[in-house]
Amino acid sequence: MALSTLAHSKSVPSPPNKYDRRLGEILHHASAVFCDKGFAAASIRDISRASGTSLAGLYYYFKSKDHLLFLIQQEAFTTLIRTLEEKLSGVSDPEQAIRMFVENHLEHFVGDPKRAKVLSHESDTLKGPYQSEIAALKKKYYRQCLTILEQFQAARQLRGVNTRLAVLSLFGMMNWIYTWYNPRVDGDWKEVASQMSSTFLRGVLGAGGNAKPVAQRKQGGTQGNKRSFA
Amino acid sequence: MALSTLAHSKSVPSPPNKYDRRLGEILHHASAVFCDKGFAAASIRDISRASGTSLAGLYYYFKSKDHLLFLIQQEAFTTLIRTLEEKLSGVSDPEQAIRMFVENHLEHFVGDPKRAKVLSHESDTLKGPYQSEIAALKKKYYRQCLTILEQFQAARQLRGVNTRLAVLSLFGMMNWIYTWYNPRVDGDWKEVASQMSSTFLRGVLGAGGNAKPVAQRKQGGTQGNKRSFA
Repeated sequence: MALSTLAHSKSVPSPPNKYDRRLGEILHHASAVFCDKGFAAASIRDISRASGTSLAGLYYYFKSKDHLLFLIQQEAFTTLIRTLEEKLSGVSDPEQAIRMFVENHLEHFVGDPKRAKVLSHESDTLKGPYQSEIAALKKKYYRQCLTILEQFQAARQLRGVNTRLAVLSLFGMMNWIYTWYNPRVDGDWKEVASQMSSTFLRGVLGAGGNAKPVAQRKQGGTQGNKRSFA
Repeated sequence: MALSTLAHSKSVPSPPNKYDRRLGEILHHASAVFCDKGFAAASIRDISRASGTSLAGLYYYFKSKDHLLFLIQQEAFTTLIRTLEEKLSGVSDPEQAIRMFVENHLEHFVGDPKRAKVLSHESDTLKGPYQSEIAALKKKYYRQCLTILEQFQAARQLRGVNTRLAVLSLFGMMNWIYTWYNPRVDGDWKEVASQMSSTFLRGVLGAGGNAKPVAQRKQGGTQGNKRSFA
Protein backbone atom coordinates (compact mmCIF):
# COMPACT_ATOMS: atom_id res chain seq x y z
CA MET A 1 0.00 0.00 0.00
CA ALA A 2 1.58 3.19 -1.22
CA LEU A 3 0.58 5.39 1.70
CA SER A 4 2.32 3.08 4.13
CA THR A 5 5.60 4.66 3.00
CA LEU A 6 4.53 7.72 4.95
CA ALA A 7 4.12 5.70 8.11
CA HIS A 8 7.39 3.74 7.95
CA SER A 9 9.07 5.79 10.64
CA LYS A 10 6.07 5.71 12.93
CA SER A 11 7.06 5.09 16.50
CA VAL A 12 4.96 4.97 19.61
CA PRO A 13 6.28 7.67 21.95
CA SER A 14 7.02 6.73 25.55
CA PRO A 15 4.82 8.42 28.17
CA PRO A 16 6.44 11.76 29.05
CA ASN A 17 8.64 11.71 32.13
CA LYS A 18 8.89 14.62 34.58
CA TYR A 19 11.64 16.33 32.56
CA ASP A 20 9.61 16.14 29.31
CA ARG A 21 6.44 17.35 31.02
CA ARG A 22 8.20 20.36 32.54
CA LEU A 23 9.93 21.14 29.23
CA GLY A 24 6.55 20.96 27.49
CA GLU A 25 5.11 23.49 29.96
CA ILE A 26 8.07 25.83 29.46
CA LEU A 27 7.74 25.62 25.66
CA HIS A 28 4.04 26.42 26.01
CA HIS A 29 4.70 29.53 28.14
CA ALA A 30 7.58 30.60 25.89
CA SER A 31 5.34 30.33 22.79
CA ALA A 32 2.81 32.62 24.44
CA VAL A 33 5.50 35.20 25.31
CA PHE A 34 7.05 35.08 21.81
CA CYS A 35 3.54 35.42 20.32
CA ASP A 36 2.61 38.43 22.45
CA LYS A 37 5.92 40.36 22.38
CA GLY A 38 7.62 38.98 19.26
CA PHE A 39 10.80 36.92 19.51
CA ALA A 40 13.20 39.86 19.14
CA ALA A 41 11.60 41.90 21.92
CA ALA A 42 10.96 39.02 24.34
CA SER A 43 13.46 38.26 27.10
CA ILE A 44 14.23 35.11 29.05
CA ARG A 45 13.17 37.16 32.10
CA ASP A 46 9.67 37.49 30.51
CA ILE A 47 9.55 33.71 30.13
CA SER A 48 10.74 33.26 33.69
CA ARG A 49 7.83 35.41 34.91
CA ALA A 50 5.27 33.71 32.63
CA SER A 51 6.31 30.18 33.56
CA GLY A 52 7.00 30.82 37.25
CA THR A 53 10.49 29.36 36.85
CA SER A 54 13.76 30.94 37.96
CA LEU A 55 16.30 31.92 35.30
CA ALA A 56 18.63 29.18 36.55
CA GLY A 57 15.75 26.72 36.41
CA LEU A 58 15.03 27.69 32.79
CA TYR A 59 18.66 27.29 31.68
CA TYR A 60 18.48 23.69 32.84
CA TYR A 61 16.17 23.10 29.83
CA PHE A 62 17.74 25.27 27.13
CA LYS A 63 20.97 27.09 26.38
CA SER A 64 19.78 30.35 24.83
CA LYS A 65 16.74 32.18 23.45
CA ASP A 66 17.58 30.83 19.97
CA HIS A 67 17.78 27.29 21.39
CA LEU A 68 14.37 27.81 23.02
CA LEU A 69 12.78 28.87 19.70
CA PHE A 70 14.46 25.87 18.07
CA LEU A 71 12.93 23.53 20.68
CA ILE A 72 9.46 25.06 20.10
CA GLN A 73 9.72 24.57 16.34
CA GLN A 74 11.29 21.12 16.64
CA GLU A 75 8.60 19.91 19.03
CA ALA A 76 5.83 21.36 16.82
CA PHE A 77 6.98 19.78 13.54
CA THR A 78 8.01 16.48 15.16
CA THR A 79 4.56 16.20 16.73
CA LEU A 80 2.76 17.20 13.49
CA ILE A 81 4.70 14.50 11.59
CA ARG A 82 4.24 11.84 14.27
CA THR A 83 0.49 12.35 14.72
CA LEU A 84 0.04 12.46 10.92
CA GLU A 85 1.82 9.12 10.60
CA GLU A 86 -0.40 7.68 13.34
CA LYS A 87 -3.55 8.94 11.60
CA LEU A 88 -2.41 7.66 8.18
CA SER A 89 -1.69 4.19 9.49
CA GLY A 90 -4.19 1.91 7.78
CA VAL A 91 -5.49 4.60 5.39
CA SER A 92 -5.20 3.51 1.77
CA ASP A 93 -7.47 6.04 0.04
CA PRO A 94 -5.51 9.18 -0.98
CA GLU A 95 -8.61 11.39 -0.63
CA GLN A 96 -9.04 10.18 2.93
CA ALA A 97 -5.31 10.79 3.48
CA ILE A 98 -5.63 14.42 2.35
CA ARG A 99 -8.59 14.87 4.70
CA MET A 100 -6.48 13.38 7.52
CA PHE A 101 -3.60 15.72 6.66
CA VAL A 102 -5.85 18.81 6.89
CA GLU A 103 -7.52 17.57 10.07
CA ASN A 104 -4.18 16.81 11.73
CA HIS A 105 -2.74 20.21 10.77
CA LEU A 106 -5.78 22.20 11.90
CA GLU A 107 -6.04 20.25 15.15
CA HIS A 108 -2.56 21.49 16.10
CA PHE A 109 -3.05 25.03 14.75
CA VAL A 110 -6.49 25.59 16.31
CA GLY A 111 -5.43 23.85 19.52
CA ASP A 112 -2.53 26.25 20.14
CA PRO A 113 -3.03 29.44 18.05
CA LYS A 114 -0.21 31.29 19.87
CA ARG A 115 2.26 28.58 18.90
CA ALA A 116 0.82 28.64 15.36
CA LYS A 117 1.52 32.38 15.17
CA VAL A 118 5.08 31.88 16.42
CA LEU A 119 5.71 29.11 13.85
CA SER A 120 4.52 31.47 11.12
CA HIS A 121 6.13 34.72 12.30
CA GLU A 122 9.48 33.34 13.41
CA SER A 123 9.99 30.91 10.54
CA ASP A 124 13.06 32.82 9.27
CA THR A 125 14.48 33.84 12.64
CA LEU A 126 16.88 30.96 13.30
CA LYS A 127 20.19 30.62 11.46
CA GLY A 128 22.91 27.97 11.19
CA PRO A 129 22.43 24.38 12.43
CA TYR A 130 19.14 25.17 14.20
CA GLN A 131 17.73 26.55 10.96
CA SER A 132 19.00 23.54 8.97
CA GLU A 133 17.40 21.02 11.31
CA ILE A 134 14.02 22.79 11.27
CA ALA A 135 14.22 23.21 7.49
CA ALA A 136 14.74 19.44 7.18
CA LEU A 137 11.67 18.73 9.34
CA LYS A 138 9.57 21.21 7.33
CA LYS A 139 10.77 19.65 4.09
CA LYS A 140 9.78 16.19 5.37
CA TYR A 141 6.33 17.48 6.31
CA TYR A 142 5.90 19.29 2.98
CA ARG A 143 6.90 16.13 1.13
CA GLN A 144 4.38 14.08 3.11
CA CYS A 145 1.65 16.36 1.77
CA LEU A 146 3.11 16.31 -1.75
CA THR A 147 3.30 12.49 -1.74
CA ILE A 148 -0.34 12.16 -0.71
CA LEU A 149 -1.39 14.66 -3.39
CA GLU A 150 0.65 12.82 -6.04
CA GLN A 151 -1.03 9.57 -5.05
CA PHE A 152 -4.44 11.25 -5.23
CA GLN A 153 -3.46 12.57 -8.67
CA ALA A 154 -2.39 9.08 -9.81
CA ALA A 155 -5.49 7.38 -8.38
CA ARG A 156 -7.79 9.84 -10.15
CA GLN A 157 -5.65 9.89 -13.29
CA LEU A 158 -5.34 13.67 -13.14
CA ARG A 159 -2.87 15.42 -15.41
CA GLY A 160 -1.54 18.93 -15.39
CA VAL A 161 -1.94 19.58 -11.66
CA ASN A 162 0.72 22.01 -10.42
CA THR A 163 1.34 20.02 -7.24
CA ARG A 164 3.76 22.56 -5.74
CA LEU A 165 1.25 25.38 -6.14
CA ALA A 166 -1.56 23.14 -4.87
CA VAL A 167 0.33 22.09 -1.72
CA LEU A 168 1.50 25.64 -0.97
CA SER A 169 -2.03 26.98 -1.49
CA LEU A 170 -3.31 24.35 0.93
CA PHE A 171 -0.67 25.33 3.50
CA GLY A 172 -1.76 28.96 3.08
CA MET A 173 -5.41 28.10 3.68
CA MET A 174 -4.54 26.05 6.76
CA ASN A 175 -1.86 28.27 8.30
CA TRP A 176 -3.92 31.45 8.00
CA ILE A 177 -6.57 29.99 10.31
CA TYR A 178 -4.82 31.32 13.43
CA THR A 179 -5.78 34.84 12.28
CA TRP A 180 -9.53 34.26 12.07
CA TYR A 181 -10.87 31.06 13.60
CA ASN A 182 -13.49 31.74 16.22
CA PRO A 183 -15.43 28.70 17.46
CA ARG A 184 -18.49 30.84 18.30
CA VAL A 185 -18.66 32.07 14.67
CA ASP A 186 -17.11 29.18 12.77
CA GLY A 187 -18.34 26.22 14.80
CA ASP A 188 -16.45 22.97 15.28
CA TRP A 189 -12.96 23.06 13.76
CA LYS A 190 -13.46 19.51 12.44
CA GLU A 191 -16.28 20.78 10.22
CA VAL A 192 -14.03 23.66 9.09
CA ALA A 193 -11.31 21.09 8.27
CA SER A 194 -13.82 19.00 6.32
CA GLN A 195 -15.07 21.97 4.28
CA MET A 196 -11.51 23.17 3.63
CA SER A 197 -10.54 19.67 2.44
CA SER A 198 -13.58 19.52 0.16
CA THR A 199 -12.81 22.92 -1.38
CA PHE A 200 -9.20 21.90 -1.95
CA LEU A 201 -10.04 18.46 -3.37
CA ARG A 202 -12.62 19.86 -5.79
CA GLY A 203 -10.17 22.58 -6.83
CA VAL A 204 -7.47 20.02 -7.56
CA LEU A 205 -9.84 17.50 -9.14
CA GLY A 206 -11.01 19.99 -11.73
CA ALA A 207 -7.43 20.89 -12.59
CA GLY A 208 -6.79 17.44 -14.04
CA GLY A 209 -5.67 18.07 -17.59
CA ASN A 210 -7.92 21.08 -17.93
CA ALA A 211 -6.37 24.52 -17.61
CA LYS A 212 -9.29 26.30 -19.26
CA PRO A 213 -11.14 28.94 -17.25
CA VAL A 214 -14.26 27.80 -15.43
CA ALA A 215 -16.45 29.82 -17.79
CA GLN A 216 -14.99 28.01 -20.81
CA ARG A 217 -15.45 24.68 -19.07
CA LYS A 218 -19.10 25.53 -18.60
CA GLN A 219 -19.51 26.21 -22.29
CA GLY A 220 -17.42 23.20 -23.21
CA GLY A 221 -19.23 20.68 -21.02
CA THR A 222 -17.89 18.88 -17.97
CA GLN A 223 -15.09 16.94 -19.60
CA GLY A 224 -12.65 17.84 -16.83
CA ASN A 225 -14.99 16.49 -14.18
CA LYS A 226 -15.83 13.38 -16.17
CA ARG A 227 -12.16 12.57 -16.36
CA SER A 228 -11.67 13.22 -12.66
CA PHE A 229 -14.55 11.02 -11.54
CA ALA A 230 -13.89 8.24 -14.06
CA MET B 1 -24.85 46.09 -13.01
CA ALA B 2 -24.35 44.79 -9.51
CA LEU B 3 -20.55 44.89 -9.47
CA SER B 4 -20.59 48.62 -10.09
CA THR B 5 -21.44 49.03 -6.41
CA LEU B 6 -17.83 48.07 -5.70
CA ALA B 7 -16.55 50.84 -7.91
CA HIS B 8 -18.78 53.65 -6.64
CA SER B 9 -16.02 55.27 -4.61
CA LYS B 10 -13.49 54.98 -7.43
CA SER B 11 -11.46 58.11 -7.77
CA VAL B 12 -8.56 58.91 -10.03
CA PRO B 13 -5.60 59.80 -7.78
CA SER B 14 -3.64 62.95 -8.50
CA PRO B 15 -0.04 62.45 -9.64
CA PRO B 16 2.14 62.25 -6.51
CA ASN B 17 3.80 65.51 -5.49
CA LYS B 18 7.29 65.70 -3.99
CA TYR B 19 5.98 65.18 -0.42
CA ASP B 20 4.01 62.06 -1.42
CA ARG B 21 6.94 60.64 -3.39
CA ARG B 22 9.33 61.11 -0.48
CA LEU B 23 6.80 59.67 1.97
CA GLY B 24 6.37 56.66 -0.34
CA GLU B 25 10.14 56.08 -0.32
CA ILE B 26 10.28 56.33 3.48
CA LEU B 27 7.39 53.86 3.86
CA HIS B 28 9.20 51.47 1.51
CA HIS B 29 12.45 51.63 3.53
CA ALA B 30 10.53 51.39 6.82
CA SER B 31 8.70 48.26 5.59
CA ALA B 32 12.03 46.63 4.79
CA VAL B 33 13.41 47.47 8.27
CA PHE B 34 10.25 46.24 10.05
CA CYS B 35 10.37 43.07 7.93
CA ASP B 36 14.00 42.31 8.68
CA LYS B 37 14.12 43.25 12.40
CA GLY B 38 10.47 43.00 13.43
CA PHE B 39 8.51 46.09 14.48
CA ALA B 40 9.27 45.80 18.21
CA ALA B 41 13.03 45.53 17.73
CA ALA B 42 13.34 48.14 14.96
CA SER B 43 14.24 51.74 15.82
CA ILE B 44 13.63 55.02 14.03
CA ARG B 45 17.43 55.24 13.90
CA ASP B 46 17.48 52.02 11.80
CA ILE B 47 14.99 53.63 9.41
CA SER B 48 17.06 56.79 9.31
CA ARG B 49 20.09 54.75 8.24
CA ALA B 50 18.14 52.67 5.71
CA SER B 51 16.46 55.65 4.07
CA GLY B 52 19.40 58.05 4.25
CA THR B 53 17.21 60.61 6.04
CA SER B 54 18.02 62.44 9.26
CA LEU B 55 15.84 61.76 12.32
CA ALA B 56 14.49 65.33 12.10
CA GLY B 57 13.77 64.78 8.40
CA LEU B 58 11.84 61.58 9.21
CA TYR B 59 9.71 63.24 11.91
CA TYR B 60 8.52 65.69 9.27
CA TYR B 61 6.59 62.75 7.77
CA PHE B 62 5.36 60.88 10.86
CA LYS B 63 4.94 61.39 14.59
CA SER B 64 6.05 58.06 16.05
CA LYS B 65 6.97 54.48 15.18
CA ASP B 66 3.31 53.49 15.66
CA HIS B 67 2.24 56.28 13.31
CA LEU B 68 4.76 55.03 10.74
CA LEU B 69 3.35 51.47 10.88
CA PHE B 70 -0.14 52.96 10.59
CA LEU B 71 0.90 54.88 7.44
CA ILE B 72 2.38 51.69 5.90
CA GLN B 73 -0.83 49.75 6.54
CA GLN B 74 -3.10 52.61 5.49
CA GLU B 75 -1.21 53.13 2.24
CA ALA B 76 -1.23 49.38 1.51
CA PHE B 77 -4.95 48.82 2.03
CA THR B 78 -5.99 52.11 0.40
CA THR B 79 -3.96 51.18 -2.68
CA LEU B 80 -5.28 47.59 -2.75
CA ILE B 81 -8.87 48.91 -2.62
CA ARG B 82 -8.28 51.69 -5.18
CA THR B 83 -6.55 49.48 -7.76
CA LEU B 84 -9.21 46.78 -7.26
CA GLU B 85 -11.94 49.33 -7.98
CA GLU B 86 -10.06 50.47 -11.09
CA LYS B 87 -9.71 46.87 -12.32
CA LEU B 88 -13.38 46.07 -11.59
CA SER B 89 -14.64 49.07 -13.49
CA GLY B 90 -16.53 47.68 -16.49
CA VAL B 91 -16.36 44.05 -15.29
CA SER B 92 -19.82 42.49 -15.06
CA ASP B 93 -18.98 38.78 -14.82
CA PRO B 94 -18.47 37.71 -11.16
CA GLU B 95 -16.01 34.97 -12.17
CA GLN B 96 -13.91 37.56 -13.95
CA ALA B 97 -14.22 39.80 -10.88
CA ILE B 98 -12.84 37.05 -8.60
CA ARG B 99 -9.94 36.55 -11.02
CA MET B 100 -9.33 40.32 -10.92
CA PHE B 101 -9.44 40.29 -7.12
CA VAL B 102 -6.78 37.55 -6.91
CA GLU B 103 -4.62 39.20 -9.58
CA ASN B 104 -4.81 42.59 -7.88
CA HIS B 105 -3.94 41.10 -4.47
CA LEU B 106 -1.03 39.00 -5.72
CA GLU B 107 0.34 41.89 -7.79
CA HIS B 108 0.77 43.89 -4.58
CA PHE B 109 1.98 40.97 -2.46
CA VAL B 110 4.48 39.64 -5.00
CA GLY B 111 5.56 43.16 -5.93
CA ASP B 112 6.61 44.03 -2.38
CA PRO B 113 7.05 40.81 -0.34
CA LYS B 114 8.68 42.66 2.56
CA ARG B 115 5.64 44.89 2.94
CA ALA B 116 3.43 41.79 2.61
CA LYS B 117 5.29 40.18 5.51
CA VAL B 118 4.89 43.33 7.63
CA LEU B 119 1.14 43.48 6.88
CA SER B 120 0.82 39.89 8.00
CA HIS B 121 3.16 39.92 11.02
CA GLU B 122 2.21 43.31 12.45
CA SER B 123 -1.54 43.04 11.88
CA ASP B 124 -2.27 43.09 15.64
CA THR B 125 0.46 45.53 16.68
CA LEU B 126 -1.45 48.83 16.55
CA LYS B 127 -3.99 49.80 19.18
CA GLY B 128 -6.57 52.56 19.63
CA PRO B 129 -7.60 54.89 16.76
CA TYR B 130 -4.84 53.67 14.42
CA GLN B 131 -6.05 50.11 14.88
CA SER B 132 -9.71 51.13 14.34
CA GLU B 133 -8.95 52.93 11.08
CA ILE B 134 -6.95 50.01 9.67
CA ALA B 135 -9.61 47.54 10.83
CA ALA B 136 -12.23 49.57 8.91
CA LEU B 137 -10.11 49.46 5.73
CA LYS B 138 -9.54 45.71 6.10
CA LYS B 139 -13.24 45.17 6.66
CA LYS B 140 -14.04 47.15 3.52
CA TYR B 141 -11.56 45.05 1.54
CA TYR B 142 -12.88 41.78 3.01
CA ARG B 143 -16.43 42.83 2.14
CA GLN B 144 -15.40 43.62 -1.44
CA CYS B 145 -14.26 40.01 -1.80
CA LEU B 146 -17.37 38.70 -0.04
CA THR B 147 -19.67 40.75 -2.30
CA ILE B 148 -18.03 39.41 -5.45
CA LEU B 149 -18.28 35.84 -4.14
CA GLU B 150 -21.96 36.31 -3.24
CA GLN B 151 -22.62 37.61 -6.74
CA PHE B 152 -20.77 34.61 -8.20
CA GLN B 153 -22.87 32.37 -5.96
CA ALA B 154 -26.10 34.06 -7.13
CA ALA B 155 -25.11 34.00 -10.81
CA ARG B 156 -24.32 30.27 -10.65
CA GLN B 157 -27.29 29.54 -8.38
CA LEU B 158 -25.03 27.92 -5.80
CA ARG B 159 -26.44 27.06 -2.40
CA GLY B 160 -24.77 26.06 0.81
CA VAL B 161 -21.45 27.84 0.19
CA ASN B 162 -19.87 28.95 3.48
CA THR B 163 -18.81 32.32 2.05
CA ARG B 164 -16.90 33.39 5.17
CA LEU B 165 -14.81 30.22 5.13
CA ALA B 166 -14.34 30.50 1.37
CA VAL B 167 -13.14 34.13 1.50
CA LEU B 168 -10.83 33.48 4.48
CA SER B 169 -9.41 30.39 2.76
CA LEU B 170 -8.75 32.49 -0.34
CA PHE B 171 -7.01 35.17 1.74
CA GLY B 172 -4.87 32.43 3.30
CA MET B 173 -3.86 31.06 -0.11
CA MET B 174 -3.00 34.56 -1.35
CA ASN B 175 -1.32 35.98 1.75
CA TRP B 176 0.92 32.96 2.26
CA ILE B 177 2.59 33.58 -1.11
CA TYR B 178 5.20 35.89 0.41
CA THR B 179 6.69 32.83 2.13
CA TRP B 180 7.29 30.76 -1.01
CA TYR B 181 6.94 32.58 -4.34
CA ASN B 182 10.11 32.33 -6.41
CA PRO B 183 9.80 33.53 -10.02
CA ARG B 184 12.58 31.14 -11.13
CA VAL B 185 10.65 28.14 -9.80
CA ASP B 186 7.05 29.34 -10.05
CA GLY B 187 7.19 31.40 -13.23
CA ASP B 188 5.08 34.45 -13.95
CA TRP B 189 2.98 35.51 -10.96
CA LYS B 190 0.03 36.18 -13.30
CA GLU B 191 -0.05 32.48 -14.18
CA VAL B 192 0.13 31.64 -10.46
CA ALA B 193 -2.81 34.03 -9.86
CA SER B 194 -4.77 32.40 -12.68
CA GLN B 195 -4.19 28.87 -11.34
CA MET B 196 -5.02 29.95 -7.79
CA SER B 197 -8.25 31.56 -9.02
CA SER B 198 -9.18 28.42 -10.95
CA THR B 199 -8.55 26.17 -7.93
CA PHE B 200 -10.63 28.46 -5.74
CA LEU B 201 -13.47 28.83 -8.26
CA ARG B 202 -13.71 25.08 -8.85
CA GLY B 203 -13.62 24.48 -5.09
CA VAL B 204 -16.47 26.93 -4.51
CA LEU B 205 -18.45 25.81 -7.56
CA GLY B 206 -18.59 22.23 -6.38
CA ALA B 207 -19.75 23.34 -2.94
CA GLY B 208 -23.09 24.56 -4.30
CA GLY B 209 -25.67 22.78 -2.23
CA ASN B 210 -23.52 19.71 -1.89
CA ALA B 211 -21.68 19.09 1.35
CA LYS B 212 -21.02 15.41 0.65
CA PRO B 213 -17.42 14.23 0.45
CA VAL B 214 -15.86 14.02 -3.00
CA ALA B 215 -15.80 10.22 -2.81
CA GLN B 216 -19.55 10.14 -2.11
CA ARG B 217 -20.16 12.58 -4.93
CA LYS B 218 -18.32 10.20 -7.22
CA GLN B 219 -20.59 7.35 -6.20
CA GLY B 220 -23.67 9.54 -6.26
CA GLY B 221 -23.08 11.12 -9.66
CA THR B 222 -22.26 14.75 -10.42
CA GLN B 223 -25.42 16.38 -9.14
CA GLY B 224 -23.48 19.16 -7.43
CA ASN B 225 -21.65 20.04 -10.61
CA LYS B 226 -24.77 19.81 -12.74
CA ARG B 227 -26.41 22.36 -10.49
CA SER B 228 -23.36 24.63 -10.60
CA PHE B 229 -23.09 24.63 -14.36
CA ALA B 230 -26.84 24.79 -15.03
